[in-house]
Amino acid sequence: MVTPDSARRYFAAHREAILADWFALLRIPSIGANPQHLRDCSACAAWLKKFLRPLGFTATVRLPVGGGQPVLLAERLGRADAPVVLLYGHYDVQPADPLDAWQSPPFEPVLRNERVYARGAADDKGQFFAFLQGVAALIDAGANLPTIRLVLEGEEESGSRGLLASLTSWRQELQADVMMVADTGVHPSGRPAIIAGLRGILHLTVTLRGPRTDLHSGTHGGLAPNPAMGMARLLASLHDDRGAIAVAGFLDRVAPPSAQESDLANAEPFDEAAYLHATGVAPVGGETGIPPYERLGFRPTIEVNGIHAGYGGPGSKTVLPALATAKLSARLCAGQSPRDCCDKLMAHLRAHCPPGLTIDFPEVNTGTPALRLPLLSPVVRLAEDVLRQLDPRGPVFLWEGASIPVVGALRDVSGASPLLVGFGREEDAIHAPNESFGLDQFQLGMAYTMLMLEALC
Amino acid sequence: MVTPDSARRYFAAHREAILADWFALLRIPSIGANPQHLRDCSACAAWLKKFLRPLGFTATVRLPVGGGQPVLLAERLGRADAPVVLLYGHYDVQPADPLDAWQSPPFEPVLRNERVYARGAADDKGQFFAFLQGVAALIDAGANLPTIRLVLEGEEESGSRGLLASLTSWRQELQADVMMVADTGVHPSGRPAIIAGLRGILHLTVTLRGPRTDLHSGTHGGLAPNPAMGMARLLASLHDDRGAIAVAGFLDRVAPPSAQESDLANAEPFDEAAYLHATGVAPVGGETGIPPYERLGFRPTIEVNGIHAGYGGPGSKTVLPALATAKLSARLCAGQSPRDCCDKLMAHLRAHCPPGLTIDFPEVNTGTPALRLPLLSPVVRLAEDVLRQLDPRGPVFLWEGASIPVVGALRDVSGASPLLVGFGREEDAIHAPNESFGLDQFQLGMAYTMLMLEALC
Repeated sequence: MVTPDSARRYFAAHREAILADWFALLRIPSIGANPQHLRDCSACAAWLKKFLRPLGFTATVRLPVGGGQPVLLAERLGRADAPVVLLYGHYDVQPADPLDAWQSPPFEPVLRNERVYARGAADDKGQFFAFLQGVAALIDAGANLPTIRLVLEGEEESGSRGLLASLTSWRQELQADVMMVADTGVHPSGRPAIIAGLRGILHLTVTLRGPRTDLHSGTHGGLAPNPAMGMARLLASLHDDRGAIAVAGFLDRVAPPSAQESDLANAEPFDEAAYLHATGVAPVGGETGIPPYERLGFRPTIEVNGIHAGYGGPGSKTVLPALATAKLSARLCAGQSPRDCCDKLMAHLRAHCPPGLTIDFPEVNTGTPALRLPLLSPVVRLAEDVLRQLDPRGPVFLWEGASIPVVGALRDVSGASPLLVGFGREEDAIHAPNESFGLDQFQLGMAYTMLMLEALC
Repeated sequence: MVTPDSARRYFAAHREAILADWFALLRIPSIGANPQHLRDCSACAAWLKKFLRPLGFTATVRLPVGGGQPVLLAERLGRADAPVVLLYGHYDVQPADPLDAWQSPPFEPVLRNERVYARGAADDKGQFFAFLQGVAALIDAGANLPTIRLVLEGEEESGSRGLLASLTSWRQELQADVMMVADTGVHPSGRPAIIAGLRGILHLTVTLRGPRTDLHSGTHGGLAPNPAMGMARLLASLHDDRGAIAVAGFLDRVAPPSAQESDLANAEPFDEAAYLHATGVAPVGGETGIPPYERLGFRPTIEVNGIHAGYGGPGSKTVLPALATAKLSARLCAGQSPRDCCDKLMAHLRAHCPPGLTIDFPEVNTGTPALRLPLLSPVVRLAEDVLRQLDPRGPVFLWEGASIPVVGALRDVSGASPLLVGFGREEDAIHAPNESFGLDQFQLGMAYTMLMLEALC
């Protein structure tokens, strides 16, 4: 029988081999959103296929319908009387810049103070690899496992376009009863968390063009419109002075949380001091007058992920830049249509384009809608019991601010009940320099996998 | 006797040698504002010293009081009964990025269609080199020249700090009656121009810091304040919806042009179609309801020269950036104190810093005030006559939008009457990629120098 300690013992006995494999996976710079890394993504999928064979998986690398990064599909047949489990994860990682902010190179994993540092150490290679090592530990213990199916994609960080386009073609291989998603975190208090909601997402790149070339700010200042200044004004128009989104119609379908949702979301109070300590910043973003849990889980955002225009080097260069570029993303809430929100956002930006400048949208991704999951299903009850074995306080329900674009569509195609439990923590610094994942977190992921797969049988 | 044709004949006879020297000067990447180019600036000053010796100049390379790029001071003694002429120019050039927008490398000068392409081809190496070649042509013609003094500095593009700090120490070497400044342009109509005013300048770098590292825009969007968004809002606060500067007190001392100034400034109407053709943009910048010549010559600006924050590569990276940086410069008008304006600008930025973010000013240059020059002095009358020989339409008076920080201070120390006549044109693209200077412009500069030096005797 599996106990919460089984994972720890297995990890201790196989530590060198597990780290060697994990590091090999992290060394592959599988930045799915960057076309220059196409070959790395293929290499990553091939590596996973090879890794899975000794565990009894039949794995295939599939090219998505209409193009995109390869998807690894795998199956390990098991007990016919147990529910089929589908694991979803992603092997693609975020870009690694700014590179000079990394203490060690992002694709040369190192262990410091029992934490693995590398791009993808947590998000999501570390998380799904803990699941796979949990399966390995169960096999080693002679457990009679359920049938396990895997879908590991390479475009989660850029909208899962390839997998989304292929879901209906691969419907057969994806059928399952329970869908475990290994891509989320624990509560800031450290209590395990079951994700009850995910925000949707859309993103786009907007450019403002002015003069044909950079102009002298003396001989043209006051005459030529300035794209850098124009971009500042354009982006400032997206919110009102309270921090609320000012795009006409954008908030139309956003509903406040129900009383039950409010109660569950407030099971652990939001710790402002801990937030400041963890991030270096007070939680004063978003709309004033709305509590933090609601701003994160129940309200949409429009964020600027980057702005670039004109001179940025040492000293001064007194130009009016020819071009300004901004990268925007919006997080969406239940009820909001990504396409409708994207249309409204683009219409707003076009309508507020400063005079004399030309607006364009070289990249537009209408993204995926938000997801609300049932709070009281049998599989959620089972997960609550398992998580209480790992932490006597039991799990909390979280309405996540992040997005995992494919979860809703995968649920619809697979017929499986989604279960989003992961062991990420704030200190993992995902999407940021010096991303890391603790060996303790890794072993919790293994233990949860082992207990959950046993409980399902 | 010198005629308008003398310069053309001399240039034709010595074309290869003149271009070889000019190209050698342009090959030195003397970017004065960038500390990495200290050695190039020294090399440039040394090159000039060597070049001037055969022309009879006694030249010395002087290090400014308190540091800075070297300044070349030179003297060529001449007739005791003629006014002493001081030429001011600068050998430093603007940074050359974006490098990939150049058709040929910025520091490998080439001749295409009778134009020299290189960083500094016009601003200011080409312009002051035309003056020096004019002197060479007069010497070749056996002219009895006045005493000529030269001051060629290496920090004009970044505020002339070294020269400004050294002026009183070098007072003796700078005494003169007429000060010719070879760093301006003709009217857009092509008519020669006498500069009647220059705007002042100040510049600063502003940073907004938020979270300790870039944060995930899903798990933190709506909680953490976003420095990129904050910078957009901060910069947007600098102007009102009419495009007028909204910094409290900034416009207090700005006066409209007098009736005489208005008349002279409107001698040639502003050609909006030509502006659009030349720059690719309609002249709709600055404050609405104020005519273009007034917005350029008689109103201050605050411009964004650059903004950089977060991700700017291909695809998306959904972060809240840790840092946003903007480079600002302001052009100032007669009556405005640069220090006072800088204080007001910084106070405004501090007061409008969005909550949760930290504002800093890593680079501040309070710059120099604007300059108004007398319209009816004897030396201006002389220049009008000379310029009418080069163009029968005669010169127009221009209130320039640009700044030449040191002109006012140099006038005060030297006791000389400034005369700002140059032969730059819009198509020169100074401060921008593919800067160039036409051989016709170069020969006009030579001819003006020759006629003016003769007329002064």
